[in-house]
Order: sequence, then C-alpha cells, then structure tokens
Amino acid sequence: MNNDIKNNDIKILRHSAAHLLAQAMMRLFADTLLTIGPATEDGFFYDVLPVNNFKEEHLELLTKEMKKIVAQNYPIEHREISKEEAKKIFFNNQFKLELIDAIPGNFVGISTQGEFIDLCKGGHVKSTGEIAHVVLLSISGSYWRADRNNQALQRISGTAFFTQEELDAFLKRQEDLVEYDHRKLGKELDLFSFAQEGIGFPFFHPKGQQILNTMTTYIRSLLYKYNYEEISTPVMLRQELWQQSGHYDHYKDFMYFCVIDEKQYAVRPMNCPGAILVYKNRPHSYRELPLKLAEFGKVHRHELSGVLHGLLRVRAFTQDDGHIFCSQDQIEQIVLETIELVMIVLKKFEFNDIAIRLSTRPEKSMGTEEQWNAAVQSLLQALAKSGKTFAIFEGEGAFYGPKIEFHIKDSMNRSWQCGTIQLDFSGPENFDLHYIDHTGNRVRPVIIHRAILGSLERFFAIVLEHFKGSLPVWLSPVQVRILTITDKQKEYAQEVFVHLRKYEIRAEIDRSSDQISGKIKAAQLEKIPLMIVLGDKEMEKNSITIRQRNGVQRFNVELNAFVEEIVKENKFFN
Amino acid sequence: MNNDIKNNDIKILRHSAAHLLAQAMMRLFADTLLTIGPATEDGFFYDVLPVNNFKEEHLELLTKEMKKIVAQNYPIEHREISKEEAKKIFFNNQFKLELIDAIPGNFVGISTQGEFIDLCKGGHVKSTGEIAHVVLLSISGSYWRADRNNQALQRISGTAFFTQEELDAFLKRQEDLVEYDHRKLGKELDLFSFAQEGIGFPFFHPKGQQILNTMTTYIRSLLYKYNYEEISTPVMLRQELWQQSGHYDHYKDFMYFCVIDEKQYAVRPMNCPGAILVYKNRPHSYRELPLKLAEFGKVHRHELSGVLHGLLRVRAFTQDDGHIFCSQDQIEQIVLETIELVMIVLKKFEFNDIAIRLSTRPEKSMGTEEQWNAAVQSLLQALAKSGKTFAIFEGEGAFYGPKIEFHIKDSMNRSWQCGTIQLDFSGPENFDLHYIDHTGNRVRPVIIHRAILGSLERFFAIVLEHFKGSLPVWLSPVQVRILTITDKQKEYAQEVFVHLRKYEIRAEIDRSSDQISGKIKAAQLEKIPLMIVLGDKEMEKNSITIRQRNGVQRFNVELNAFVEEIVKENKFFN
Repeated sequence: MNNDIKNNDIKILRHSAAHLLAQAMMRLFADTLLTIGPATEDGFFYDVLPVNNFKEEHLELLTKEMKKIVAQNYPIEHREISKEEAKKIFFNNQFKLELIDAIPGNFVGISTQGEFIDLCKGGHVKSTGEIAHVVLLSISGSYWRADRNNQALQRISGTAFFTQEELDAFLKRQEDLVEYDHRKLGKELDLFSFAQEGIGFPFFHPKGQQILNTMTTYIRSLLYKYNYEEISTPVMLRQELWQQSGHYDHYKDFMYFCVIDEKQYAVRPMNCPGAILVYKNRPHSYRELPLKLAEFGKVHRHELSGVLHGLLRVRAFTQDDGHIFCSQDQIEQIVLETIELVMIVLKKFEFNDIAIRLSTRPEKSMGTEEQWNAAVQSLLQALAKSGKTFAIFEGEGAFYGPKIEFHIKDSMNRSWQCGTIQLDFSGPENFDLHYIDHTGNRVRPVIIHRAILGSLERFFAIVLEHFKGSLPVWLSPVQVRILTITDKQKEYAQEVFVHLRKYEIRAEIDRSSDQISGKIKAAQLEKIPLMIVLGDKEMEKNSITIRQRNGVQRFNVELNAFVEEIVKENKFFN
Repeated sequence: MNNDIKNNDIKILRHSAAHLLAQAMMRLFADTLLTIGPATEDGFFYDVLPVNNFKEEHLELLTKEMKKIVAQNYPIEHREISKEEAKKIFFNNQFKLELIDAIPGNFVGISTQGEFIDLCKGGHVKSTGEIAHVVLLSISGSYWRADRNNQALQRISGTAFFTQEELDAFLKRQEDLVEYDHRKLGKELDLFSFAQEGIGFPFFHPKGQQILNTMTTYIRSLLYKYNYEEISTPVMLRQELWQQSGHYDHYKDFMYFCVIDEKQYAVRPMNCPGAILVYKNRPHSYRELPLKLAEFGKVHRHELSGVLHGLLRVRAFTQDDGHIFCSQDQIEQIVLETIELVMIVLKKFEFNDIAIRLSTRPEKSMGTEEQWNAAVQSLLQALAKSGKTFAIFEGEGAFYGPKIEFHIKDSMNRSWQCGTIQLDFSGPENFDLHYIDHTGNRVRPVIIHRAILGSLERFFAIVLEHFKGSLPVWLSPVQVRILTITDKQKEYAQEVFVHLRKYEIRAEIDRSSDQISGKIKAAQLEKIPLMIVLGDKEMEKNSITIRQRNGVQRFNVELNAFVEEIVKENKFFN
C-alpha cells in the first residue's frame, strides 16, 4: 500500500469515527446540536453545541455507546439529496442549515448509518464495524467557524486506527508524552523551575545547571576542534544599533528596552550585532578568513504569556551561536564543515532521524540574483558533498540569504527544528564590513550564522523528553550513586567515592539507613544511570558491583577499570 | 627607624619640596599667587593662581630652577611672627591673607630659605640641599579651599624621596602604571574592547574570552572540590522582588528597568534574590545544610559615565557569587573554609600580600544584639583558627550582618579589595526562609554571601596589570607558539602542533615568512610565555627547543616531557 493511499484511508476511517461519535451523542444527548466533524492530522473531532456542557466523565459514556454501534455494524451509506430535502432533515440545527446554504449547487451529500443521518460530502468506511479501534481523548472549547465572535462550541476529540496494536502504541505514546513531559521530569528530578517573579525566565537548579554545563563543555570541545574562537558581547546595546541591523524594524515587539543616560537600549534578542562589532574592532586580512566567532549568548525575546511552555518556549535563553566571516568562495567549505559538525552533535545526543531542508530565495529579498545563485549553488554543492539527502523549500529562505535547517525526530516521534546554517549578505552591507584581499583591495565578507543546538534551554527540554529523563552517562548530573548493603561498608564506600571524585566522576553516596532495595529504588526514581553496590563480598575482594539503571548487574568489577570507562565517557576532547 | 617616624620624616621632606617648588616659581613667575602646599600620601602639591596658566613644558623649567636651589643649599629657617608683620609680607596675596586671618591667636609661622619666605606652620628639613631627589609630575585644576564656587587654581604636583634609588623606583613604577594599564594591554594583546553602542559594557575578544573561561574553569574546579552546587537564575526579575529584598530602596539609582506585560522588571544588580528563590523552591532539611549555591551571575549596575574605567569600573560584570544557606552553628566552619578558599585562589593568581579586615555592627543595623555577637564571634573564631592576621573595623559591617574583606596588593604596590564574606540575617527574614531541624521544627537559616574574585571582569584587569600582561602559563590565552627556523621544518612544526592540541594545550604556529629573530620578537610582543623553536638539529634529534618569554632557553627537550609539564599546569582538578 502506498503511503498516500494509506494516509487517505486513515483519514476516511477517522472521519467515519467522527460520525460514530455523533451517532452516540444523538442517542444519549439528543438535544445536542452537531456542527462539523472532520478528520485531522492525528485523529478527528466533532464541534457541538450541547444543552449542558460535556465533562470528562461523559467521554466514557459516549465511548460505551460508540462500542455498541460498532458491534451493531451498520452499513454506512452515502447519497446526494436536494438542498430542500436536506433542510427538512436538519430544520432544527442552524449550523447545518448554514452549511447547506454555503454548499454550491442544488444538491448536498448525506450519510446514513442505522437511525443516524448526517450532512456529509462523503468518504467513509463501509460499516460501523470497521471503526473498532477508536478512542476519545479530550474536550476543549472552540468557536463556530473558528471565529471568536461566533457561538462558543465544545470540541470532542479522538482518534482511530486500523488495528488494536496501532491504537495501543498511540495510547502508550500519549501516556509517555504526559509521563515524560520535561516540565514534569524537571520537577521530579529537581532540574529547573519557574517563578512568578520572572514569567518565562527559567531558574536552573544544581542538577539542571550541571546538564547545561556539560552540554556547553561538549560544544566547546568541538569549537576547539573546529578552530572557532569564543567571544562574549553585551546583553544590551543601543537602539540605533538594532535599527542599523534591521532587528528593530522586524522584531521590536519581541524586544525589551531600558533607558541608560537618557538613551534607549535594547536587551539583545540575537547575538549577531555583538559579533559584528567585534569583527569591526580592527581591520582584517584575507589570511584570517574564515574567522569563526562563537558565543554562548543569553538572549531575551518576548513571547505572549499564553504560548510559554516550560523550557520549550521561554523568554530568555542561551544560543550556541556562531558567526563565520568568510569570502564568497569559502562558503561551500564552511557549510560542508558545519553540516558535519551538526551531524556529530546530533548523533552524540542520539538523534538518528534527521531531515535537512534547504530554503531558497523568497520574493522579498536583498542581494543580487548573482549572489543568490552563487550562494544557493554553494549550499547545494555542500549538501551534495555531504552525501545527505535533503528537501528544497523554494522561496522559504530569509530575506537576507538562503538557509539550511536541521529537523530531528525524537524517541516519541515528534519533529523539532534545531540547527540552522544561514547565509547573510545583508549584515556585511548594513555594517559596511571589509577584509583586505591578497591584492590589497577592500572586499565585503559574507557572514554565515549557524547554531547547532539552537537554544540550549529548548534543546535541554527536547533531550530530556527524548531520553524520557534517563540521560546517557556522559550527560547525567549524577553519574554514579554508591549504595552500601549495611553500615559495615561505610568506609569502603567513602574510599570508592573519593577515588571517583578524584577523576571528576559525578558520584555521590546514599547515606540513608534504608534497606538496599530502597536505595536501589531511590536511585532508579532519580534515573541515575549507574549504581555501585557494596556488600561484604565486594569489600573482601576489593571489587565493586555495578548495577545499571536498566537492572543489568556486573559483578566483580575492578574499580579502576570502571573509572576508566567513565573517564572515557566524560572526555570530549581528542 | 620605626615606621611612624619614617612616615613623618618623608612628609617633612615632601612638604619642604613644596616650598622648594614655590621658591622656583617665585623666581621664574614672580606674579604667581601661592596658596597652600602640603605633603600628601604619595608626594606634595602647591595650588597657585598663575597670571598665565602653567603648561606641561613649564615643569622642566621649574625643575631646573629647583635643582639650582638645591645646589645653593640654603638653610631653612622657621620662626613665629605677629599676624600684623605677616600681613605686611603677604600684602598682595589675598589667599595668604585669608589663611593668616583663619589661624587662631596673634602669631603665625613663616619659613625662610634664601630670598624666599612662605607662610608655614613648620616641619622642614634643615636645608634645601636635602631635597635633592625630587620630581614634578603633573599640572591639574583645583579650587581655592576645594570649593567649586571659589577661585579656580592650578595644582602642580610632585614627589620627593630620601634617595635616588627610591625616586628611580617610583618613576619606574609610574612608567609601569602607564605601560601596563590594562586598557593599553587589552588593546595591544587584542583581549577586549568597548564601543559607543554600549557605554561601560565590555566586548571580550577571543583571547580575552579564553582568559575569562580559564578563570571560570579554575573557580569551578574549586566549587567541585568544596562541594558547591552551581545554579543559574534570570537576568531580570520583577520589581516587587527587589523591593522585598531591599535592593530597590537602597539601590534603584544604580538599576536598569524594563517593562514586560505592563509589569516593571529590574535587570539584576546582584544575584542574591535568584539564589533565594531557588532555595525557596522546595522545603529543606537540616541534613542538606550547609547548602552552597554558586552562580557565575552577570549583573548590571549603573555607574556615572565619568567614573567608568576600562574593566576596573564597568556597567555589566560577572560575579563568582556564592550563597551558603546554613545554621547558626555552621557559620564558623563555613567562614574558615571560605577564608581557606580565598587564600588558595589569591595564591594561584600570585597575590602574596593579603590584608584581611573584619567589619562589625554599624549603628543602623537589623538583627538582635545576640545574633550580632554570635556572628561576630564566629567570624573572630574562624579568623583565629585560620591563623591569619586581620584588622577590625568597628561599625563598618553591612546593615544586615558583619563581613570579612580581603585586600590584595599587586606587583605595582596598589591595593585592591577583592573577596568578601558577608553574613546576612536580613535576607532569610525578608524572604521567610526555613529549614526543618532534627526535631522537626522550622528554623531560620543564615545566608553567607561570598565572592572570591568579586567581578570577573575587574579581577581580569587587576591580574593583567599585576602580571604586566605576562600572564602565567596556565592563564595565557596562547600558551605556546611554534617557530620554525626555515620552511624545512614546516611539517615537523605541524606534527608538534597536532600533538600539543591533542592535549588541549593552547598552541599555534607562526606561519609567517619572517626570520627567526622576527618571529621571536613577535611572540615576545604578544607576551606568549613559551616558544618552541624548531630547526634542523631539533628535527634530526626529534626534540624541541623551548624558549621562555624571559629569554631562557632549554635545548634538547623531549616533546612528551614538555606536554606533561603543560598538562600539569592546565590541570585544576586533583
């Protein structure tokens, strides 16, 4: 079965499920007014005007009735009738009447299953028996024709699958999404918090900060390897600068402003102008290019409070930013290298499903046709050389240059845009940047903006959910917890602890007086990847027992061999 | 000779030097009106009203004349005369007349040397021949009686010493202060810059950022060793919070404000409230105390543009902040540990002259007599146990608790306040902080605020000047530069380079086509601590020659042995 057909089939199934829900509602709450019930990307919904609002507990009732209708296995029949006839059937439903009037021509479709008739343009399974693997998920608010000025409605949403296995997998994933929501994990694992004193501004607790620091150190190790040079530039700069850069015009509603010495300053929403000022601080020769400036820059961007979402959508975050100043003919090489860099990083974080998009010249754009062609050509050639597959999104580049985006799929099958590589012809013009070429002429450089993780805070959230809280050893804030079976091993535990700490292994001792089973459970709840269990036997043999988070145990391990393993995990350089 | 007598003697010498200057002025510019000419901490000055303003070139003329008077070796005589007589002598000098009127009683002192008479209460050397080691330093503006509403005057400043050696040392130090001004070094070594787009906000260039990162990594290694936990908290928070913390009332003129969602936010001038909110995020048990939270927190504080001074006085800087939440009876232990920590750090940066000050309860203060006594007692006991000498500054503590300050002397004999340890009874009250003690009761913790470096940016400047730009190997942004004698060693240089980089040694190759002497000079100008010089001999023997910044050379060094040395320098942990 080809994907499009399959996709069409599932939409038909889900639209049929909406009718199934409507039939159940009519049986149990006959005065409810039905409006529309389409299939969506992931399921279906029906928007209705109930006499009394539906509540969560009604979903069970409705589901029971739906199962009955499935068992009754009514054939689903579709036919065309005149509008006049249709208006008679739906005479007491103002919404359906409005829909009928809006349909062109004199005929409309209706669908019948058992006693239930609905207005419908068609596309159904053959009988209600086929809609066995269905579930209702939520009740939410909506508006007639999605317009806030119209009648408020209730939306009952659900989904359906062809097989019980698919439905079970979906339900498991839904549970996981709740269970492994980074906001929940963040609280349970004491990683970060938010406060009313700073809406959208995260507070990183010690373990969360440890994770951020590890991410930063890892990225720094690659900056070193790829000959980047790190800089840091001010958190706020004069408004004039943001006008010059164009950010003020495009972005001012998302920016925060301060007044200093009667001058308007803006808190930076991006790090680019800072890097540009560093570049402009002295003249540059072609010999220095490509000049790769990196900054872990804290930026502030206003988001409406309604769309803030844990660390995934905040008002202050840190970008792992890079600005590469280079000549036209270095673009391809830099882009190729950056693709490689992004791939290395994403692999390290165990993202294996990566989609690459190339976005080309939009209608409104600056720069010459020639520049754009050369730039897109460089990107295409770099992508070709990288051997990666990619999709082209015509006209979706930024106004100042084409870009490459990396979209990753996480363990719960969601897609996230992370890294970007962006060519910029506009910045060098706006700030009149130069370098001196080998003939002594002043030449305009190109700027390549690139971010690998993007926002460290957002990537933190994505990674936390991707690993369902069980971070790999190298990224775990506590890597090893030492558990003693009885108090007799206390001193031995301390020795082991001191030894691990000496090698910068993030270890701790469980000093509680709990039973060993309780200690193991506690470590598992905290998702600590490795436990060292110490009993009399281990003490006698001067060895350790390793218990992994997944329950696998390794006995008779030599401490130094274990240290070597972890030191290797913790080593980013080389 | 005891220090006080010596101090008195030098003051007498310098006051005599002021008379010497005045005599020279009277000889060359007889219409100049003299006002006062006291000794100061470091020298002397004479404030005068000239007919035409003195300029820099006049200092040489005056100095020549002073030398003459020294050679003439006039005895200096002091006697008392009646005010009436004095007024006759100084009849045409309104300032001296005013001074005479202000002296109580009927007599005033005058001092005579050769043809010159000055009003003076006494204290001189015996003859002008004793003032041989004198120098004039500057001309600046001043006001009669230091009041801007009075007559504007010119101040000619100088200094004098008992010996030529002391004078030479002083002059060398003056030269050094100019030569090794961190702003000059920062530009020459391409470490940082400032821009009109952000007055008082530093931009760190790659090499400067490398130094900051090394400082941070070093401090982090100690945080790890001393069981601190790092956090990060928002750059801006609601104004209400700053009102609650008391910062708003005491500090609002130094703070920057933004409006977000129609609420007033303040950019943080301190990190304390952030750490307190992290503490408050969940309940705490006595078992967790002392809880040591560290933050490398970027703060913004408004300073008048006139007092901004390179990195020594900026408007945005990073504190190596620590907030320790502990019980009353843990104060002594924490303070002792923190003194140790500060001493370790200052020693690492080669500051050996450290003065410790204990500041006690000021008149206006919060907390009970009992709390203060206990707190001061803890500080005293910790200081006693540390074995360090310290001075007590009665009444100079903060209103919220007593404090210990560390003052360091740099290589140019200037004193800087760096580390502080501050007890705080007020924060825990204002934010109603608790922990649960071993009996299950809610108890108020104490907060100990501590900073080791203080402002990273300011410490950066102090260190840069202290080392006169020649940073120790571990702190140098470029640790090793590889120089080839001819192009024949290019490949060998690359091998050595790759090997060094593998061990995270900050190395680079001089790829210029300069002579070896030119390459050495360039490296010296950039104050790179170590050069590896490679010629045919080194290549043959598979060895390297090390040339230190001070010119000392080591031949026949094995690369691995050298790597081991530097790796040891770069290793902070253990």
